[in-house]
Amino acid sequence: MSQTISQKMQERVSFHDSVEEMLIRIKEDGLSSVFSRWDPQEKIRCNFCLQGLSCQLCTQGPCRISDKAGADRGVCGIGPDAMAMRSLLMRNIMGAATYAHHAYEAFRTLKATGEGKTPFTITDENKLKWMCEKVGIHTNQEVNTLAVQLADFLDHEMKITPDEKSQMVEAFAPQKRKPIWQSLNIYPCGVQHEVENSIASCLTNVDGDYVSLAKKALRLGLSTIYTAQIGLEMTQDILFGTPMPHEVDVDLGIMDPNYVNIAFNGHQPWVGVATLLKARKPEYQEMARNAGAKGIHIVGSIETGQELLQRFEMDDTFIGLMGNWLSIEPFLATGTVDALVMEENCSPPAINEYAEKYQVALISVSTIIGVPNVAHEMPYYPAEVDVMAEKCITIAIENFKKRKETIEPRVPQHKMKAIAGFSTEAVLGAIGNDLNVLVDVIAKGQIKGVVALASCSTLRNGPQDWNTVNITKELIKGDILVVAGGCGNHALEVAGLCNLDAIELAGEGLQGVCRALKIPPVLSFGTCTDTGRISMLVTALADHLKVDIPDLPIAVTAPEWMEQKATIDGLFAVAYGAYTHLSPTPFVTGAPNLVKLVTQDVESLTGGKIALGDDPVQAAKDIKAHILKKREHMGLQ
Amino acid sequence: MSQTISQKMQERVSFHDSVEEMLIRIKEDGLSSVFSRWDPQEKIRCNFCLQGLSCQLCTQGPCRISDKAGADRGVCGIGPDAMAMRSLLMRNIMGAATYAHHAYEAFRTLKATGEGKTPFTITDENKLKWMCEKVGIHTNQEVNTLAVQLADFLDHEMKITPDEKSQMVEAFAPQKRKPIWQSLNIYPCGVQHEVENSIASCLTNVDGDYVSLAKKALRLGLSTIYTAQIGLEMTQDILFGTPMPHEVDVDLGIMDPNYVNIAFNGHQPWVGVATLLKARKPEYQEMARNAGAKGIHIVGSIETGQELLQRFEMDDTFIGLMGNWLSIEPFLATGTVDALVMEENCSPPAINEYAEKYQVALISVSTIIGVPNVAHEMPYYPAEVDVMAEKCITIAIENFKKRKETIEPRVPQHKMKAIAGFSTEAVLGAIGNDLNVLVDVIAKGQIKGVVALASCSTLRNGPQDWNTVNITKELIKGDILVVAGGCGNHALEVAGLCNLDAIELAGEGLQGVCRALKIPPVLSFGTCTDTGRISMLVTALADHLKVDIPDLPIAVTAPEWMEQKATIDGLFAVAYGAYTHLSPTPFVTGAPNLVKLVTQDVESLTGGKIALGDDPVQAAKDIKAHILKKREHMGLQ
Repeated sequence: MSQTISQKMQERVSFHDSVEEMLIRIKEDGLSSVFSRWDPQEKIRCNFCLQGLSCQLCTQGPCRISDKAGADRGVCGIGPDAMAMRSLLMRNIMGAATYAHHAYEAFRTLKATGEGKTPFTITDENKLKWMCEKVGIHTNQEVNTLAVQLADFLDHEMKITPDEKSQMVEAFAPQKRKPIWQSLNIYPCGVQHEVENSIASCLTNVDGDYVSLAKKALRLGLSTIYTAQIGLEMTQDILFGTPMPHEVDVDLGIMDPNYVNIAFNGHQPWVGVATLLKARKPEYQEMARNAGAKGIHIVGSIETGQELLQRFEMDDTFIGLMGNWLSIEPFLATGTVDALVMEENCSPPAINEYAEKYQVALISVSTIIGVPNVAHEMPYYPAEVDVMAEKCITIAIENFKKRKETIEPRVPQHKMKAIAGFSTEAVLGAIGNDLNVLVDVIAKGQIKGVVALASCSTLRNGPQDWNTVNITKELIKGDILVVAGGCGNHALEVAGLCNLDAIELAGEGLQGVCRALKIPPVLSFGTCTDTGRISMLVTALADHLKVDIPDLPIAVTAPEWMEQKATIDGLFAVAYGAYTHLSPTPFVTGAPNLVKLVTQDVESLTGGKIALGDDPVQAAKDIKAHILKKREHMGLQ
Repeated sequence: MSQTISQKMQERVSFHDSVEEMLIRIKEDGLSSVFSRWDPQEKIRCNFCLQGLSCQLCTQGPCRISDKAGADRGVCGIGPDAMAMRSLLMRNIMGAATYAHHAYEAFRTLKATGEGKTPFTITDENKLKWMCEKVGIHTNQEVNTLAVQLADFLDHEMKITPDEKSQMVEAFAPQKRKPIWQSLNIYPCGVQHEVENSIASCLTNVDGDYVSLAKKALRLGLSTIYTAQIGLEMTQDILFGTPMPHEVDVDLGIMDPNYVNIAFNGHQPWVGVATLLKARKPEYQEMARNAGAKGIHIVGSIETGQELLQRFEMDDTFIGLMGNWLSIEPFLATGTVDALVMEENCSPPAINEYAEKYQVALISVSTIIGVPNVAHEMPYYPAEVDVMAEKCITIAIENFKKRKETIEPRVPQHKMKAIAGFSTEAVLGAIGNDLNVLVDVIAKGQIKGVVALASCSTLRNGPQDWNTVNITKELIKGDILVVAGGCGNHALEVAGLCNLDAIELAGEGLQGVCRALKIPPVLSFGTCTDTGRISMLVTALADHLKVDIPDLPIAVTAPEWMEQKATIDGLFAVAYGAYTHLSPTPFVTGAPNLVKLVTQDVESLTGGKIALGDDPVQAAKDIKAHILKKREHMGLQ
């Protein structure tokens, strides 16, 4: 496999022409990039680390497990399965806590908005009332009062301990799943409690049992989705509007060097939305023109960009999305970015060198960000978001003056259309709010099944987005509807799979459905944070049919997962009952019992399991086989 | 250095004869131990890991930093300083979250006790009222009402966000420190918030700046002590009594195989106290006698044992402390233990094999514990602690019947006296509640200074407890009073440094003080969780003298730190303003700027710094030099 990847890599390192083009400039300019730093690492990778057989937790270590060296355990006595699973759980915890951090900021922003302290308003009152009804808040109250109560409720949900029961899980989990989670002892508490409990378990000499650790990972996954993710995405809908499909521009070709370009990068759209609202006002455009620019452009970068894209129409100010995280360095190298405003991952650590070389003002708007030598730091307070937006604009305008003088822009002429803005409500809208329409096309086999693609982008299994694009092409060709979130979604948007032209790449049955409903074969559902949102659609389908999740002809794929939030989404999917394809293979191959547990035995427990495989064609075949098996069980052809 | 250690190791692997003796049995019986598993690991240790130059977080990695290989950064772009600091911060987070978990269980237990749901009572009403006064709860209420209010208050303190201000920090931090922490932006929020914020910072592509990461570690340290540790130790005092000095027995020689022996292991004394209260009743002793035993013995194991030791007098039922974590496997190998009841670290993962070999019933009484094949699991609910205690007794009695038939006991004849039970109140009591007495003996130079020893036990820098015992001997010889907590404290108790006979090992000045006050030269202050308690004494001294912490002739040493809770105690000490000796050297030596920051530059910021060095004689010399410098600055000889 490794050789195949090398061969692919010899030809190109990214699926996207725009990125390939910018990498030439980056090389000419003497900078390193994620792409160029890959090669030296490839030569010195640790085989123990790759297999999960390395531990650096305590001073009795670092330890490695090597039967050959007579070291079948760590000094403390931990075996290979628990060592690898503990390490994986720590990564799950990182993902879970980061979603919790995002949720904390969301609920805090909703509360401040209800209290009239932000420039935001309650944009989707219906969703606010719907959420309040779902969780038992009396809706015959004033809208802002409801917002404050919901915010307090959701914040408390993250803190639920074993002495209480989560109402979010009760309200949003599939009916048939709940007794199963109870019996497996993975019915979750609030994410902040589960994070704390899981970390305390990972300490040296606490939980050395791989089965116990794996169950904690499953419970943490459920907790993350139900007590953080779903609430936070619904909160963002309430604040900024529920996504509805509309056409947008993507790829680096959206950049125009003659504008003051402010890019919002990360996952949390607070300052981005506030700045967009402000930049659309004539007085701010005027400020930019006074500085010699044609105006202000707001640019979406990675997931924050997607959050904007899902909810805001493009116009003279908001110009679309640049791509996913591996495109950030190439994006900065266009010499067109005046401010990169960052609040969460991915803000790669070496972009300060790009900022210097290409005259970009780096602005951190969250205490979690720490790019070296970041020029501007503003901790986020909802009540200050208007001032923060103002500062972003003035910093960017000042930067524009310098950039215009010193930097030669180079914009790759690649721009693509995509239809963004799918949500459960949007899908239901497209089928006349009648789930039977969806059931029918699945029953007739026009759509064989649905695959949720929630992924990052990585170089481990091929060029940027190569695996993601290829597995998706195989799936839609086989009449499988793909619902996408995360950096993998941006990959598909930029690759042209999220527009109506892509319909012709689909199989005949799916083509028919797409043409009838005027939807692409890949539905852009947002970010990795929308994993919960995607599950809501699947849950609705299962509850409508009165079946359990593992009965449905569905699957999940993360064809290029890269970081820790992806791992917790993956563990959620397994607990949720889904066949879950992961590539690259997690660092667990030195742990035979663990591998058997997560790829085989767990299926008899949760109905879900992890499927491995780095070849996108084969992985798609395996997914199709799984979906056909489930169809057969349901008595469908 | 490594060779010196090997030489020491050739002679023996533990300072304690009892452990050496049991290791012979363990070897004869064909079991591996922490001691025997050390050797093969020693041959295959990773030099990248040892230097902090290895990262396994994401699928772009695993990465290593090697200038030779042209890999001066990770693929993401992170440099050596941030890579090492991020890894250290993750370990700090593990420690902080575990203290928070302990605190959560403490506050939950206090609340349930106030509500009349546990067998516990409010043992120290004065302390409850004192705490309530400190934090602004009206004390003219019924005691149980106060307990509930204080529990709710303390639980909320852990959740303080930047939108509020911690009252615990306000109430307990040294007066002169607060403005410094404010100006450095390390004034802490609640530990649960800081943990979440720190984890989200450690994700791939979030905080890649070693200075930013280091500041987060300092803030997290302060947060841990003020919003978790101090509250939880005060809560345990309120529930079980404030420690007062009394004589106790320690070392493996305390075991009598003819009793039903129930050992409580970990850090959280809830089930241990409930079982002790129950086992002291005649009907339970009678149950044991009916099973052929002489009665029931409650045995303290590591920190839980120390929590019991600090507050309960020994008697026919409670027989003392077995030692520290490295003694657990030897302890089980005595063939005298009927139940090992575990609730936190350290519960080494391979003790299931000891349980099988020596007929020990393993009982987990916390959801965080996961020893493979643990026979009995009971999640902790305060309202069920009485039932849990009952079960521990019946399980142990059943085990006794089998053990008596099958296992030949082998008890090393080593038993030592120690004076346990020091606390701020106890020290003040010893000096007639007049801090000027302490100030006087320091001013006169009878006591040159005070060193807080808060440590684990590790094999990295010599045999078990070799470094701890030797640095302590050097310090007391130089008229430095040692105040000890953690597994390092148990080391000193077992080594005979915590009793009145040890006075003759002290320098002349300290000897005089010890004889006058009838105290040992090493004051047993409890566990690693008592780091906060120790700081309260130092804070009282600083505030009394109206000076700042870095002005005082004090220092901290962790001469054998092993795990993650030790690292967060160490970071607290640096932020608190203390000279902080750490051995072994943390995994940061490949990060030159970081090493300079924490060992030099930070002193101009917080007044504290980290001092390294694995030779106990030299480390003690360095500490003495620091203390003499501070004395000189104060105008003392």
